[in-house]
Amino acid sequence: MRMVDIIYKKRNGNELTEAEIQFFIEGYTKGAIPDYQVSALMMAIYFQGMLPHETALLTKAMVDSGESIDLSAIEGYKVDKHSTGGVGDKVTLIVGPLVASAGVPVAKMSGRGLGHTGGTLDKLESIDGFNIEMTEEQFIDNVNKHKLAVTGQTGNLAPADKKLYALRDVTATVESIPLIAGSIMSKKLASGADSIVLDVKTGSGAFMKTLEDSEALAKEMVNIGKNLGKKTVAIISDMNQPLGFEVGNANEIKEAIAILQGAKVEDLRLLSLEIATHMTVLAGAYSDYDEAYAALERNLENGKAFEVFRQFVIAQGGNIDMIDDLNKLPQAAHHIQVTSDKEGYVTKIDAESIGIAAMYLGAGRATKDDSINHAVGITLNKKIGDIVKKGDVLVTLHADTAKPDDSVRKVKEAYCFKEGSVERPTLIYKVIRD
Amino acid sequence: MRMVDIIYKKRNGNELTEAEIQFFIEGYTKGAIPDYQVSALMMAIYFQGMLPHETALLTKAMVDSGESIDLSAIEGYKVDKHSTGGVGDKVTLIVGPLVASAGVPVAKMSGRGLGHTGGTLDKLESIDGFNIEMTEEQFIDNVNKHKLAVTGQTGNLAPADKKLYALRDVTATVESIPLIAGSIMSKKLASGADSIVLDVKTGSGAFMKTLEDSEALAKEMVNIGKNLGKKTVAIISDMNQPLGFEVGNANEIKEAIAILQGAKVEDLRLLSLEIATHMTVLAGAYSDYDEAYAALERNLENGKAFEVFRQFVIAQGGNIDMIDDLNKLPQAAHHIQVTSDKEGYVTKIDAESIGIAAMYLGAGRATKDDSINHAVGITLNKKIGDIVKKGDVLVTLHADTAKPDDSVRKVKEAYCFKEGSVERPTLIYKVIRD
Repeated sequence: MRMVDIIYKKRNGNELTEAEIQFFIEGYTKGAIPDYQVSALMMAIYFQGMLPHETALLTKAMVDSGESIDLSAIEGYKVDKHSTGGVGDKVTLIVGPLVASAGVPVAKMSGRGLGHTGGTLDKLESIDGFNIEMTEEQFIDNVNKHKLAVTGQTGNLAPADKKLYALRDVTATVESIPLIAGSIMSKKLASGADSIVLDVKTGSGAFMKTLEDSEALAKEMVNIGKNLGKKTVAIISDMNQPLGFEVGNANEIKEAIAILQGAKVEDLRLLSLEIATHMTVLAGAYSDYDEAYAALERNLENGKAFEVFRQFVIAQGGNIDMIDDLNKLPQAAHHIQVTSDKEGYVTKIDAESIGIAAMYLGAGRATKDDSINHAVGITLNKKIGDIVKKGDVLVTLHADTAKPDDSVRKVKEAYCFKEGSVERPTLIYKVIRD
Repeated sequence: MRMVDIIYKKRNGNELTEAEIQFFIEGYTKGAIPDYQVSALMMAIYFQGMLPHETALLTKAMVDSGESIDLSAIEGYKVDKHSTGGVGDKVTLIVGPLVASAGVPVAKMSGRGLGHTGGTLDKLESIDGFNIEMTEEQFIDNVNKHKLAVTGQTGNLAPADKKLYALRDVTATVESIPLIAGSIMSKKLASGADSIVLDVKTGSGAFMKTLEDSEALAKEMVNIGKNLGKKTVAIISDMNQPLGFEVGNANEIKEAIAILQGAKVEDLRLLSLEIATHMTVLAGAYSDYDEAYAALERNLENGKAFEVFRQFVIAQGGNIDMIDDLNKLPQAAHHIQVTSDKEGYVTKIDAESIGIAAMYLGAGRATKDDSINHAVGITLNKKIGDIVKKGDVLVTLHADTAKPDDSVRKVKEAYCFKEGSVERPTLIYKVIRD
């Protein structure tokens, strides 16, 4: 078998066989096939696509390129959750304790933030002492005891995907739905859960800008799950503005806790309930959607979900005083109100610009090696549909510098207005399942 | 400027600017841009194409990536000639002396054969002592004295093309008309002639199998010439069978000499006259096509063209006795007649199979490092349109082994027959000029 023939075949729009896909993924992982042939194949796939069956085989080959996590020592049915990436997306911090409060184990491997999106691990590290480095044994033990643990990615999961993604990033071959779907699903499948709930973001602040593309990606991922024997549900949710009101780290922890204590921050609460409902139904904890939704809503009201969160923080070494008195969480030196020069109804809040403004403050990383300032961040005072007059406060910047001019400019750019009233955006567009 | 943005732009079907093309060709030549980005760009160009103007800019950048030959010390208007590659294509050996016999200088840089196609240099080296390595001074001096000299490629011409071609070959990105046209024209333009006549082969034995593709390639090359100020004429000629009757090295020399001495081997003679006519008209040696054609035909009849060939062989150190007595050229040990198992009219003689059969005999190279046996080769006893009965001789193999079974099998595969008479193929389909 020769790589050039595989490229040629795909270039001409033909389906690759399982043997051909394995040959190229194995060869690339081992370094036997050079980058320049793989980038040509990636570009050919960009133009010619892959059949659903072919995409599943590619994903399987990427899973098989490395280790897979064995979660069988955890009692119960394990459901994982993944978001394609948004701004202000602290859903994991809510969904984790909420699903665990229904007795369903959540063994979550999370990542760090880069660029305009934050990471769950960074947010949790706002809490003094919080430890995300555990042995596999500790991790499993914590999930069995508290139904919830969060750790950094361990093991050499889907190394082919890691190598491919780095190559695609510098060869303009990222935007291919089969390749994106395969990349996401290979990591999730290697993480060992029994089922997966995907939160596919759509809109100006999402990787997928249109509902059509988001739906295509969601279907492709659900299809991969089906082909490879893991039940997968994808929720398509709005990212035409940040989720909730808080963007940063410590302030996102606070907002998540507010939800866990029953607060009614509408978009964040509803999306968290939606995702948690599908996870608990997949796990068989409830007989149907409505029953699950009602039960989980109760666990937000009655403090059960919050108590799981507390125990989880304690179990991972976090200073519980900071949770019981949120004023003890890191605080920024300055709170700067950014007012509007324009007026009208808010039509869009570009999430990427808000994410970048937060990064400028120090809440995110421009490069992998940057460190995070957990105290800083942004509070949105206006969201889509709100009416704004000149001089009204749009956002509050929590900064450690007195004049964060770049962030001020960036948040002002993010807001779009029009005359006449604006409907609030749909939060959940679709649910895709096989 | 970033290479990834250039790939992205082309991937999305946009035109690249002169600065972007220069950036990528210069960067690639210097090694500052890696293969994996260039192969992705090549695949994007395969799918999205390039505008005529863009292709000319690419070609110019490839010319500028290395040296250009300065032929200004040669008196007169210099016209170069290039064939896209055929089997039995000894046209240069005829056209060179023929054009020179009209007083038009021919300063020819030729190549060696690889795979199923032969090279002019290899054919000339059938003559003992023939030297194709000359200093630039000797080369120019020989052209000024004899109006004809043939040398191997000297200097570092279009190094970007060399590097790009090697990469395209292993990434399934060869078959792109703008890239093929740019590759051919960059070398020709760097070779310093004032005008270029291109022989674009079409048919089963050619790189371009269809007339449509051949015409597209011809137009693209003529357009590049026009954009870069070199008058270019492209002739589209048939390659549904080898040219002439001889395929090899010494036997091709003999056939070329026969034409130079007035023999009427129809396809070979007519194509040579056509190419030489366009070359001499471009050089202004004659006022029009008809006058040139008639004058050149006379120079084949009256021995002038042959005498130029003799002087050229002497000037480059070749043993003239071998030309004056062709029996002194290298002779194979065995002459094996391959007879037909089938009958009918010949409809096609796959030139590539004939070329490979000749290569198996030793007349060509499977890899660059193989050596050539100048004595061996193939004589076609039947061509398209001939009637063949079972047991008729199809070809004669001139071999140094008694049983060249692989070649016998290959030449038999090459012949196709049908019942009922077959027209002889068109030799010259079209002439493209700007």
